[in-house]
Amino acid sequence: MKTYTEYLAFQTEQKEEIIPITKQVGNALGKSGIQDGMILVSAMHITAAVYVNDLEAGLIEDIREWLQGLAPEKNYRHQATGETNGSAHLKNLIMHHQVIIPVSHGRLDLGPWQQIFYAEFDGQRKKRVVIKAIGI
Amino acid sequence: MKTYTEYLAFQTEQKEEIIPITKQVGNALGKSGIQDGMILVSAMHITAAVYVNDLEAGLIEDIREWLQGLAPEKNYRHQATGETNGSAHLKNLIMHHQVIIPVSHGRLDLGPWQQIFYAEFDGQRKKRVVIKAIGI
Amino acid sequence: MKTYTEYLAFQTEQKEEIIPITKQVGNALGKSGIQDGMILVSAMHITAAVYVNDLEAGLIEDIREWLQGLAPEKNYRHQATGETNGSAHLKNLIMHHQVIIPVSHGRLDLGPWQQIFYAEFDGQRKKRVVIKAIGI
Repeated sequence: MKTYTEYLAFQTEQKEEIIPITKQVGNALGKSGIQDGMILVSAMHITAAVYVNDLEAGLIEDIREWLQGLAPEKNYRHQATGETNGSAHLKNLIMHHQVIIPVSHGRLDLGPWQQIFYAEFDGQRKKRVVIKAIGI
Repeated sequence: MKTYTEYLAFQTEQKEEIIPITKQVGNALGKSGIQDGMILVSAMHITAAVYVNDLEAGLIEDIREWLQGLAPEKNYRHQATGETNGSAHLKNLIMHHQVIIPVSHGRLDLGPWQQIFYAEFDGQRKKRVVIKAIGI
Repeated sequence: MKTYTEYLAFQTEQKEEIIPITKQVGNALGKSGIQDGMILVSAMHITAAVYVNDLEAGLIEDIREWLQGLAPEKNYRHQATGETNGSAHLKNLIMHHQVIIPVSHGRLDLGPWQQIFYAEFDGQRKKRVVIKAIGI
């Protein structure tokens, strides 16, 4: 059994950004030499998500607007700590912070339209994603 | 370490259907010969989910109605592409597209009421789910 | 390849409680002897979640209030079965019932603020969480 670990670093210009990372995950898999197994892609922060969906600009904007409706900016209790990111925490919970991609024949075993995204909800600071592959 | 991969195919009659798949996942596990490890069950499409919850007809109808409220049909930006499935993409994001079931003593290590479901939100076309088991 | 399995038991005093479990997961990992791999933490019930976010009392209260708004108590179809927990099932679906934590150098490879939580939505009864570690 082999394992491989890599960290991706992000520092977005905007407070919120959705960034495609399928290529980076595929590159990590290539370096691992794993042919069959699983690769976990997981945000290391609590105001960012990793998800799989469609690389289509209109939809990405729809997702942002929809999340804004479900987890609006407001004066959350959390903000008594001095933070202003209550909404970003809730968006992380809806979207989930991780995905696990099956690996078959040395490739990400994704469907035809599936792309992996990093969704930043409280950016303009350093954040990381951990990639962990296991398999044979 | 062993691995095993299988694909389930779906083509639902309705646009939306929720289909129990615990038996198919258990069968795949049996074929794998794995006694201890994990089995990933992951939709390969971006308008379908895989989730674990209760096999109870009333609840399944409640889930559908509730999702309709959280991600209603409307004229999403995505629909400028000619698609009419913006709502189905958002339902996929709420429900998450995958689960990973622990495997112990050669069996799905589920709680007493846990059942695995495929939730189709944009059906009447060919879709797939990938099952990937790893373990010993 | 090694595997390790442990079950955590809960019986909350309140109907809803959110309980930090990072320490218990770390202890299970220590017992596994695994240095590199993954550890799955998964609720075995359909009215409880396992999630990763911030250990901050105000935010935990915010999460509960927010979930109450997204999945309010009401007379769901499911309640024709005699159950009164329709809302708890829907909260489980939003929050997801499981997380998988990467393991590096024998430790939970979490970001600086990431903590693991058990979220009970229909307590005052016996519930379990399964922990399954795999790796080398």
